[in-house]
Amino acid sequence: MSKEIVLAADLGGTNLRVAAIDHQGTILYRAKRETPRGESVGAIIQAIVESAIECRENCAAFQVKTICVAIPGTVNVSEGVIMTAPNLPALNGFKMVAALEKELGIKAVLENDANAAAIGENWCGASKGYADSILVMLGTGVGGGIMINGKILRGVDGMAGEIGHICVEPFGVPCSCGSRGCIEQYSSASAIVRIAKELAAQFPDSILNNNAQLKASEVFDAGINGDQLALDVFRQMGFYLGVALTSLINTLNPEIIVIGGGASAGWQLFVPHLQETILQKAFGSFSERAKLVRGELGDDAGILGAAKIACGPLMYTS
Amino acid sequence: MSKEIVLAADLGGTNLRVAAIDHQGTILYRAKRETPRGESVGAIIQAIVESAIECRENCAAFQVKTICVAIPGTVNVSEGVIMTAPNLPALNGFKMVAALEKELGIKAVLENDANAAAIGENWCGASKGYADSILVMLGTGVGGGIMINGKILRGVDGMAGEIGHICVEPFGVPCSCGSRGCIEQYSSASAIVRIAKELAAQFPDSILNNNAQLKASEVFDAGINGDQLALDVFRQMGFYLGVALTSLINTLNPEIIVIGGGASAGWQLFVPHLQETILQKAFGSFSERAKLVRGELGDDAGILGAAKIACGPLMYTS
Repeated sequence: MSKEIVLAADLGGTNLRVAAIDHQGTILYRAKRETPRGESVGAIIQAIVESAIECRENCAAFQVKTICVAIPGTVNVSEGVIMTAPNLPALNGFKMVAALEKELGIKAVLENDANAAAIGENWCGASKGYADSILVMLGTGVGGGIMINGKILRGVDGMAGEIGHICVEPFGVPCSCGSRGCIEQYSSASAIVRIAKELAAQFPDSILNNNAQLKASEVFDAGINGDQLALDVFRQMGFYLGVALTSLINTLNPEIIVIGGGASAGWQLFVPHLQETILQKAFGSFSERAKLVRGELGDDAGILGAAKIACGPLMYTS
Repeated sequence: MSKEIVLAADLGGTNLRVAAIDHQGTILYRAKRETPRGESVGAIIQAIVESAIECRENCAAFQVKTICVAIPGTVNVSEGVIMTAPNLPALNGFKMVAALEKELGIKAVLENDANAAAIGENWCGASKGYADSILVMLGTGVGGGIMINGKILRGVDGMAGEIGHICVEPFGVPCSCGSRGCIEQYSSASAIVRIAKELAAQFPDSILNNNAQLKASEVFDAGINGDQLALDVFRQMGFYLGVALTSLINTLNPEIIVIGGGASAGWQLFVPHLQETILQKAFGSFSERAKLVRGELGDDAGILGAAKIACGPLMYTS
């Protein structure tokens, strides 16, 4: 009988990435295409199905019985339904598991993308071997996944881990979630740009001024070159991330916190401020106990986590 | 063979309470005395042992094989050692399990008092039947216990659940833990008194002014009688508690949050503000999903939780 492998998909707002992966986490084949935008769920399902078939055809020597899809939104895992996908609103309420199982004839599972990334880093990345880990994804927004005793924390509705909406300034910057002062507004890529624009007047000589299309990566480049405005942006970003992580550390007493996502590229500029804040604020010995490391898997964290879920049997903490 | 019961102790900074309790949570006999203060651990152990023997003698028809002691501090459960007990510093580093087992000749277990209270409320109180619950204890400080899938969350060092040190104001009131802006400084009994004193100048007609020995219960009584200063104190207390609980709700997606401890007596004055804040700040449907209730067991939460632990087998989430 031929060896069994799994299919894993990471459905991003921009790109859809599907891969054939074995039970040891080796990626055997990759398919990538743009995520279809628009009103229709049909085009998205078709893109996943075509990519899945491409992977299967290129790994014909193996058996495939399961696909897991990492979703940029909240998911009801047990029902196989996407609850809300802010960047792909056509998927809100969509029963994706039923659609995929019908089209592909194999078992399908969904997972939130940050949870999948946390599982991926725990399976074969930065938190491998740690029972209690937290993944923080610093992207356009801030996402997260919490692993307790080797299992993802899901909460009563399967939606735990919304780390991006920890409140760090009770009267702070309005957030898309309806609250104010969420860490997403202080430590994401979007936040880096916002803070840079707000501080511009204080740093008239900064190279970043008068750039209406400013990107987080440009703020980082300026910081590396010693631009004081950029350095102040990353100081604020690191401080507030430290405030949020301190609350997580005091509450969950984790072994390791992995920081991934595009904005983690600014690591060397924000991490000193992040560490200093945790040392000042975290409870007693917790601050030294919780290791702080960069993600190791980059864009593959989600797809590898999805593969691990597809490998099953999947155990949830709750 | 006679029915087996357990002994449970709640070692407070002021009182030591020990009880004989059956496996259904019925308290069969209680012993209570003042907690011996001072440098010596011997007096504390002696007080626990004498109370335990008193309970055993008064329940001579039953077998007793285990005692569990709830400790006001951090505990290394697997080693049976008290790490730090801020109100009983003589106990710092003390191997209490070994001492009790030697004196009593039965198995001994330790647990943090807020964790014990969370287990107690989950066993036979306000969160009975809920798998994912959080207990928040509003006392002189703020403590907490987190239950996930029916088990207490302990974290890598067994010290998770330090809810009182969630940061709600990054540049806020200094806390005894070394940080600033911990929720303990905004929603505890001590915080009620502090806020009342700080707001006094704004409310010259308040009955609370010029009371150097002000107690939280007096602020509550004044609020019930419509005193504007007192009402503003509970508005602030409820708002900030809402900020902290929102971060917990977004992170853990719990089913139910139980609020206990002495300062929860102010429930009717702070809860409207607490609920309003959670509705405004918590992520999407989480805010409606997490029930908010008062503790049902009062001072017995800790002792009943300790009894549940003594009944074993004890399963921890981590």
